[in-house]
Parts: sequence; C-alpha cells; structure tokens
Amino acid sequence: MSSQETKLALRSFVAERDWGQFHSPENLIKSIAIESGELLERVQWGGQSDSEEIRSELADVLTYAYLLADRMGWEPDEIVLEKLQTTREKYPVDKAKGTSAKYDQL
Amino acid sequence: MSSQETKLALRSFVAERDWGQFHSPENLIKSIAIESGELLERVQWGGQSDSEEIRSELADVLTYAYLLADRMGWEPDEIVLEKLQTTREKYPVDKAKGTSAKYDQL
Amino acid sequence: MSSQETKLALRSFVAERDWGQFHSPENLIKSIAIESGELLERVQWGGQSDSEEIRSELADVLTYAYLLADRMGWEPDEIVLEKLQTTREKYPVDKAKGTSAKYDQL
Amino acid sequence: MSSQETKLALRSFVAERDWGQFHSPENLIKSIAIESGELLERVQWGGQSDSEEIRSELADVLTYAYLLADRMGWEPDEIVLEKLQTTREKYPVDKAKGTSAKYDQL
Repeated sequence: MSSQETKLALRSFVAERDWGQFHSPENLIKSIAIESGELLERVQWGGQSDSEEIRSELADVLTYAYLLADRMGWEPDEIVLEKLQTTREKYPVDKAKGTSAKYDQL
Repeated sequence: MSSQETKLALRSFVAERDWGQFHSPENLIKSIAIESGELLERVQWGGQSDSEEIRSELADVLTYAYLLADRMGWEPDEIVLEKLQTTREKYPVDKAKGTSAKYDQL
Repeated sequence: MSSQETKLALRSFVAERDWGQFHSPENLIKSIAIESGELLERVQWGGQSDSEEIRSELADVLTYAYLLADRMGWEPDEIVLEKLQTTREKYPVDKAKGTSAKYDQL
Repeated sequence: MSSQETKLALRSFVAERDWGQFHSPENLIKSIAIESGELLERVQWGGQSDSEEIRSELADVLTYAYLLADRMGWEPDEIVLEKLQTTREKYPVDKAKGTSAKYDQL
C-alpha cells in the first residue's frame, strides 16, 4: 500500500463488510478493468471533461489496484519503482526523447 | 503521488524523455485502460497465473494512474481515502456485510 | 452469428482445436475486454493510426463477440437491432439531435 | 456491416440524431472499450450472472464495433474471416489442440 494509513483503512473497510471472500486476484483484476472503463467514459467524446468525475473514477481504479497489491503482498510504490527501472532501460533517453513510438520501433 | 520519492522519480523519467507533451489527461486515461487490459490478459483463461507477470502489469496500471494524479494535481492516497468515505456511506456495514450486491440492490 | 458462413467457420475453428472447454461466457467476456484494450492501444497517443492494425484488432473484438453470442444462442444482428429499439426510445430525435449528452442529462 | 438491414438501421439511427460528428474512429474505439467494461461488470464477482444483462451489454459492444467497421468501410464478417485465416496459421491444430497457451509458447 502506498501509505500505511491507506492500507489499514482499506483493510478495515473490507474486513468490516466481510468482503475478503470476493477479493480473489482475478476478481480484483476484473474490477480494475471495469473501473478503468468508467474512467474512460469521462472522455468518451473528447472535449471538456468533468474534473470531479475523473477524480472519483481514478480513485476507484487506485482502490482496486491497492487492494490487489495488498492481496499479493506487494507495496504499490515498490513495484512502480522496480518497473520504472526496466522501462528506463527499454526506453533510453537518447533514443526515446520526444517520441511516443514503442520500444521495438525506436 | 503516493510518496514523494515515487512522484519525483516518475517526473524525472518523463522530463528526461520530453514525454510530458503526450501526457494529456485523456491519453493517460486511455493508457490506464490499455494496461488494465494487459493485466486482465494474465487471467484470461482462469487457472493458475504467473505472479511475476501480474506484478509487472499492475505496476504499469499504477504508473499511469500516478501520472494522471500528478497531472491533475492530486495525491493518490488522498483521493482514495476521500472516495472510501463516500463508499462507506453507500455500503453501510449492516446492509453490505457478506454480499457482493451493488448498493442500489442492497 | 452475423452470417451462417461466419458462424460455421468459427465453430469449426474452435472444434478442431478443442477450445470449447475454455470458452465459458466469463472467459469470452474477459477476452472481449482484452482485445478492446489492444484496439485502444492503436490510438493511445492520438495522431495518425495504422488502419491495418485497427482492422486486425477490431476483427479480434468481433470474433470473441460472435463466439459469445453463439455460446449464448443469440444472433448478433438480432440483439443489435433489439437494443437499437431501446436506444431509440432513450434518445428521442428531438432531444438528442446534435448532442453527445447522456440520456439522463438531455 | 454484418447484414445490409442492420447497417442501414444503424446509419439512419445515427443520421437522424446528427451523431456522425462524434463518431471519429478514436471515439468509437473508446466506446467499444467502455462497453466492454460494462459487459465485464456482469461477471465481476463470478457466480451466476444475468443473461438479459449480458445480452444488452454485448449488443452495445457489437453496435460500436459495427459502427467502427462501417466508418472504416469494412464488412464485419469479412474482417473476421480474414483474421481467422491468420489465426489458423498461428495456431496449427497439431500444436494448439486442447491448450490455451499463446502461439509463442506452443
């Protein structure tokens, strides 16, 4: 969990409702995808989007991502920083600068 | 950002590559959805899934979620805890305990 | 299936590989979401996208959608036309013309 | 479009509402992903799911997939059958039979 406080708050929220039984890794992964779709709906037709709605939907994505990390015994920040190291190597500055091309097309 | 260190690491990763120009809220939202699909692919056919692959794909979802939060000026933990308060009220313990039903069907 | 020929081709493709065992409704639904994410990746950063790649990814979405319809005993065109009738009523021309607003905000 | 009748019905539905202006390929692709998320929500927690709800959400995925195909000038069945040919070659019967492994792990 990104901070001890958030991790404990989420754990007690789930425990009070006895929802751990539904939180298999697969169900949490489906939930992340579902909430990502709701977040995407905020920009479905382009144009101006509502910042409060994006905030609320992003919170849902993060919540399920944190729950999955905790279920797997991982710290969110730790896995982000670990992956960033790999991505730094896949996208070296001299090749990747200023382009959105994928690493296999650099 | 969930921790100051992670936020700064992501910012410098993006700045070094001059990728801020691609990171509109909409593009980051699409990216979260794309990475959620790759995470979902790890459990496409059920059965045993590879923990290392889930870790790597979850890191991608979290990375784009953190980048979007930073782009919008939000702290990930803050919006998670704020949303948790709303969800606590939508799913009161006495009604929600032990069921996966949606709030409008409790 | 949208046409008898396509339905039969998909059925024999699956049967030859003995893949029906993996095609539960839930697994097919996950597959549709996964392929939708790959389709979305073609427009991740906006700008010009490759028409051949979109064609190939859209075909994957349609293939799993057809497989799910066949698994459930539905004709794709029939359920599309049936749903269109509902949508016509939710979005009456005089209110919905020229706006991308959701029906509850018309 | 899978059948001439469906294609014409969708075209007139869109034209009557003057919605063609919103139906860029990118917006239709986002819409497919959003509707796939709603379809996935029907099986979020596993267990028994409502067949009528799956039917309705699958219809939405198919509708946007048909609209995208028509916008690009493609026939849905044609691109499905074309892609099936490629997939047949990637997954030859003697290697792929009875396994859900990806082609690069056969």
